[in-house]
Amino acid sequence: MPTYPLIEYADAGPEVRAVYDDIMATRKIDWINNFWKALANDPALLKRTWEDIKQIMAPGALDPLVKEMIYVAVSVTNGCQYCIASHTAGAKKKGMTPEMFHELMAVVGMANESNRLANGYQIEVDEAFK
Amino acid sequence: MPTYPLIEYADAGPEVRAVYDDIMATRKIDWINNFWKALANDPALLKRTWEDIKQIMAPGALDPLVKEMIYVAVSVTNGCQYCIASHTAGAKKKGMTPEMFHELMAVVGMANESNRLANGYQIEVDEAFK
Amino acid sequence: MPTYPLIEYADAGPEVRAVYDDIMATRKIDWINNFWKALANDPALLKRTWEDIKQIMAPGALDPLVKEMIYVAVSVTNGCQYCIASHTAGAKKKGMTPEMFHELMAVVGMANESNRLANGYQIEVDEAFK
Amino acid sequence: MPTYPLIEYADAGPEVRAVYDDIMATRKIDWINNFWKALANDPALLKRTWEDIKQIMAPGALDPLVKEMIYVAVSVTNGCQYCIASHTAGAKKKGMTPEMFHELMAVVGMANESNRLANGYQIEVDEAFK
Amino acid sequence: MPTYPLIEYADAGPEVRAVYDDIMATRKIDWINNFWKALANDPALLKRTWEDIKQIMAPGALDPLVKEMIYVAVSVTNGCQYCIASHTAGAKKKGMTPEMFHELMAVVGMANESNRLANGYQIEVDEAFK
Amino acid sequence: MPTYPLIEYADAGPEVRAVYDDIMATRKIDWINNFWKALANDPALLKRTWEDIKQIMAPGALDPLVKEMIYVAVSVTNGCQYCIASHTAGAKKKGMTPEMFHELMAVVGMANESNRLANGYQIEVDEAFK
Repeated sequence: MPTYPLIEYADAGPEVRAVYDDIMATRKIDWINNFWKALANDPALLKRTWEDIKQIMAPGALDPLVKEMIYVAVSVTNGCQYCIASHTAGAKKKGMTPEMFHELMAVVGMANESNRLANGYQIEVDEAFK
Repeated sequence: MPTYPLIEYADAGPEVRAVYDDIMATRKIDWINNFWKALANDPALLKRTWEDIKQIMAPGALDPLVKEMIYVAVSVTNGCQYCIASHTAGAKKKGMTPEMFHELMAVVGMANESNRLANGYQIEVDEAFK
Repeated sequence: MPTYPLIEYADAGPEVRAVYDDIMATRKIDWINNFWKALANDPALLKRTWEDIKQIMAPGALDPLVKEMIYVAVSVTNGCQYCIASHTAGAKKKGMTPEMFHELMAVVGMANESNRLANGYQIEVDEAFK
Repeated sequence: MPTYPLIEYADAGPEVRAVYDDIMATRKIDWINNFWKALANDPALLKRTWEDIKQIMAPGALDPLVKEMIYVAVSVTNGCQYCIASHTAGAKKKGMTPEMFHELMAVVGMANESNRLANGYQIEVDEAFK
Repeated sequence: MPTYPLIEYADAGPEVRAVYDDIMATRKIDWINNFWKALANDPALLKRTWEDIKQIMAPGALDPLVKEMIYVAVSVTNGCQYCIASHTAGAKKKGMTPEMFHELMAVVGMANESNRLANGYQIEVDEAFK
Repeated sequence: MPTYPLIEYADAGPEVRAVYDDIMATRKIDWINNFWKALANDPALLKRTWEDIKQIMAPGALDPLVKEMIYVAVSVTNGCQYCIASHTAGAKKKGMTPEMFHELMAVVGMANESNRLANGYQIEVDEAFK
């Protein structure tokens, strides 16, 4: 159960509604997912987080699908169930094929493994990488 | 200091040398970085890890630069100093521009933040994402 | 499902009951939460953990509500569902308002983000901070 | 070594200088620490991160010292060396005494321990905490 | 809900069936757990992961029960619910008694605590340990 | 640099010296490592941590070497440099051979990998493991 009630559009004040409207317009969808409804308990946090994500996830030097897959990689590494579910759905919507997902998981798994081998063998950084 | 001495090519047995040769041929380089020299203390681990990485990081549904950036995203999330240094160098070599790196970091930072907001507000997964 | 059955007061031996009694007396409550009932499978672990927590969470240089919020911050960072739920409830009971919780989450989120930016940009510690 | 050179004030463009000036004015200091000099390689990231931190760390329902200690708790849990050093220094400057630091560490250690006991014993959340 | 459907034996191709057969033969069981059924969406990942695990978990310098308990220790530290459940079951099957589990948890909890104390007090490695 | 100065035996009060004496007697050594010298800034933390570790790491259902290797597994997973160095040294002293260390690392690496595969494929716990 959420720590605080989810704030539905009908019950939201103008500040929260403005963010909800921008989320739906930007993403071309007609609903708001629970993440935003939970953050809406703190309108300042909602607004700041949305504006940051909107700016960060926009097309740039990396395309939005690559960004979404990086988001999945981090969420899987941290074991955040909500974020894994929502960003995997987001990546599929942006065109991630099963083959892309399988390769993503293979890299994430391998990186988590080799991170620990580097830790455990106490390997010093090569001069060439400094 | 490494847990066990780094194994140089000159001191390596044939099993280790065969892996070293394949690493250099595959990556078109003429030196071996410390990660492999440390793992060479266990030739079976060296061989298995290299064969996995070679298979996983090869071009496929995702291009090698995207895979390298995912590797960086995981290593940064875990705080593995060796892997951050080596895979950032690897990504630069494969064509990562400063702009790409900055966007990569922005997404990694944001994902680590929103993972905790989702945890802390105890947000339940939307039906639409299941 | 728990790894081992929860030990209810009625089924507990004298060593476990003594800890349960002290928990209820110290916290001025009349029930025992699942964490302790699970640990009671190992009476030595139960006793040691309770005595440590009792000592650590007592009023001191930091007030108990601040300590409880720090506990939440760690649990959210680690993604421990049980601990998030129980310590958020504990903090509310000790007087955490919604405004305090929102600010707590904002700091936890920001810290998790900037930790990764510091990792990813491989930033060296300033002399002034050493 | 940082991934990109640190940007000194003298070498910074007007956008970066404006942030540096605001950091120094807000914190009443006359120097910029490496975290910001590294982020300045991406002026948009620098500006966004500073504005978020300025807003989040300002006095509110929680006092700035409590916020700084929460920042330390997260950084210690994640093992981020730079952030531990800089935010411990920041907390001392805001009035953290040795006694407060010792209690902070005791809570952080205990929370990290009990998070794993809750995981390992697979303890279900009590109805009372939902 | 799994990201992709679980692949049952009856619906699997020959490559996947060969792995399933080897898992059942090696472990002397007549069913396949969900981990493998999920990975079977990517037959190459399934085969590689199984061959690695088969090689790594075989008797060697460490006995299989010790290996299984180390697997539990890592999974508990990472908070991976699936892996905690499956490897705790695996360890019990290999002979882990309640007393062994309790001691395992005590060490895992203590290590997670002291890891953070070492981080927070910024303790330098003794010369004798280098 | 440590957050607070290391407390040497010569400068320690009777409460700290009593712990130092017990550490040296229990471990049959004639020096104190930095972990304890740092914790000695808070005599209550020093005493509580030492008594917990002494009790937890004593021979029991698991032998001390297995416990030490579990400690290494956790420390490697968390990336705690101090703890990796000190507990790897401790395990070697208790009889860990290179072959045992290599197998330990292989299991730790594999577990970290498969934890993320289980997360990413969002695999539900089998009924048989509940």
